[in-house]
Amino acid sequence: MSVSARPESIVIIGSGPAAWTAAVYAARANLDPVVFEGEPVGTELPGGQLMLTTDIENFPGFPEPISGPDLMGRMREQAERYGTRIVSELVTKVDFSAHPYTITPHYSAPVQALTVVVATGASAKWIGLENEIRLAKNGGGVSACAVCDGALPHYRDKRLAVVGGGDTAMEETLYLTKFASEVVVIHRRDSFRASKVMADRVLQHPKVRVLWNTRVADVLSQTDERGNESIAALRLENTANGELSTLDVGGLFVAIGHAPNTAFLGGQLELTEHGYVKVDSWRTCTNVPGVFAAGDVIDDYYRQAITSAGTGCMAALEAERWLAHHGIGESPVLETAEAMVVASPDQIAHPLATQA
Amino acid sequence: MSVSARPESIVIIGSGPAAWTAAVYAARANLDPVVFEGEPVGTELPGGQLMLTTDIENFPGFPEPISGPDLMGRMREQAERYGTRIVSELVTKVDFSAHPYTITPHYSAPVQALTVVVATGASAKWIGLENEIRLAKNGGGVSACAVCDGALPHYRDKRLAVVGGGDTAMEETLYLTKFASEVVVIHRRDSFRASKVMADRVLQHPKVRVLWNTRVADVLSQTDERGNESIAALRLENTANGELSTLDVGGLFVAIGHAPNTAFLGGQLELTEHGYVKVDSWRTCTNVPGVFAAGDVIDDYYRQAITSAGTGCMAALEAERWLAHHGIGESPVLETAEAMVVASPDQIAHPLATQA
Repeated sequence: MSVSARPESIVIIGSGPAAWTAAVYAARANLDPVVFEGEPVGTELPGGQLMLTTDIENFPGFPEPISGPDLMGRMREQAERYGTRIVSELVTKVDFSAHPYTITPHYSAPVQALTVVVATGASAKWIGLENEIRLAKNGGGVSACAVCDGALPHYRDKRLAVVGGGDTAMEETLYLTKFASEVVVIHRRDSFRASKVMADRVLQHPKVRVLWNTRVADVLSQTDERGNESIAALRLENTANGELSTLDVGGLFVAIGHAPNTAFLGGQLELTEHGYVKVDSWRTCTNVPGVFAAGDVIDDYYRQAITSAGTGCMAALEAERWLAHHGIGESPVLETAEAMVVASPDQIAHPLATQA
Repeated sequence: MSVSARPESIVIIGSGPAAWTAAVYAARANLDPVVFEGEPVGTELPGGQLMLTTDIENFPGFPEPISGPDLMGRMREQAERYGTRIVSELVTKVDFSAHPYTITPHYSAPVQALTVVVATGASAKWIGLENEIRLAKNGGGVSACAVCDGALPHYRDKRLAVVGGGDTAMEETLYLTKFASEVVVIHRRDSFRASKVMADRVLQHPKVRVLWNTRVADVLSQTDERGNESIAALRLENTANGELSTLDVGGLFVAIGHAPNTAFLGGQLELTEHGYVKVDSWRTCTNVPGVFAAGDVIDDYYRQAITSAGTGCMAALEAERWLAHHGIGESPVLETAEAMVVASPDQIAHPLATQA
């Protein structure tokens, strides 16, 4: 498709639940949205982290489990159905210094945007082993989200391993004790950096064992008679003395952190101390007027498809109201938009700040 | 079903998207949740406001429109599938003065709860006309949510009426100008109480006409050859001189406010100045430890099914972590729970406050 050089009402960057929900709401509000859904890069696929998820049991509205790619395909189809234009390119650069804002994709010409929704998500950090990534992709017992996957039947009453030492690793460990026969926490140091209360809960839990000074050197898999590959054991290395050992496990949960995808913003949006895009309390507005953020790029705590979809909706509604407050909410917006070309963002008051 | 007199890990009050999503997450976390889904009372049905919605086009994951009762039925089924116990009674009283908390339903015996999720929603205010309610229920062109319903095909290029004079009425009016041939705002006073910027946008909009000092006395309907009833006109009364007139319309949007369903709380949770349950920034914890709130009962701004579902998920995750932080997250919880019976809520620190 060719993207017009005239200002778009709304440009949405991302392709997870937040981006598609924002697109559905923006499209139904006649804002004629453009979504830059990205391109495959390594383990990152358009569609976001759910593209690595085989069975989603907790997205409300789906009593039967649905696969991540299926759910994302349905959301994408819904956005398209109501008129969303989709560009299958990464955004490499944005310029928020003058309004309309400039969005520069990988290959196509730059696009002008009256409002922007940043919904580029976060990437789970992986150990970086080839077998680990393959087993995560094919549902073979490796996951970066215990809350998402821990309740799946094939993890029940198995020994499960958690890699990590922060609060998230502690929470995932305690969560998994509900299902596992044993949870083995593997940490490369000799103490946790988690808060004391959480570390104590883990250390005192009768189902938990901790392997200190240990790293996962490889993930070993087995293949059943139907050709399905699944995790069998971990090859472990003692980081103090280099000794190798093998630990039979029924699942591996990697909890060594997430990295929000903000590099393309070039420092133009204010971030939290953890590097996530900073938004107001229960609002998705950023420090730049007309730029909103949603999904895992603003969330270092819940990280669920349904929470991301919720904030994606919020961002689209706020963008729509922002345009309405500035009298540029109608379609076509181009005549009135021209009046704003010379305005700098600072001159545009945030409408929500003035609302009762 | 009979409810045990022993403390439940989590009791969820409500039956909209927030309640069922909380139930799905709590059930998958082995918390064995109980949901009090309520009973039919007037226009209020278990399932919440969506029970009055015929075509939902904006719940992500459903490219084809789905009816409100269908979507709520699917969410309820999903919660049940993972083990949620459902009690079809209203909660008439809660006691948060001693932990475990006491939840008193309409008919059954009171229940003790270690954590509670309040997801009782809000009720749209209606004018109170019999025809209005019937047409809202059967999808006949009366709605209390422009963002939800305004984009539906049968409202396109019609004259639409909005009743109200606050910010929400202004936002709904501007939203509807995208689809309508004309939007007529009907207001019983001679000025809007909306913020000036919003009122000005409405007053200056070429597609908007305002009828001041006017109230809707009746909603007139027509029936097509297939027996489908739909709105035809409004019977209007001038509040100054009592004169009656008729206005042909293709839709009526009632935007005279919402009332959060908090009466049963008996003032035990801190509320916002607008009467909604007060929660922390991007958290669902209330001022009472272990009591969380989600959905429209905390939201006076977005009011969408998907945003409610998102906060329902958040509440269940926070409840689960709250139990884990207190070492009472495992199932069965009853032994350890007894240690907490004598504790008052003030003695229980909120775990999120101590987290990095």
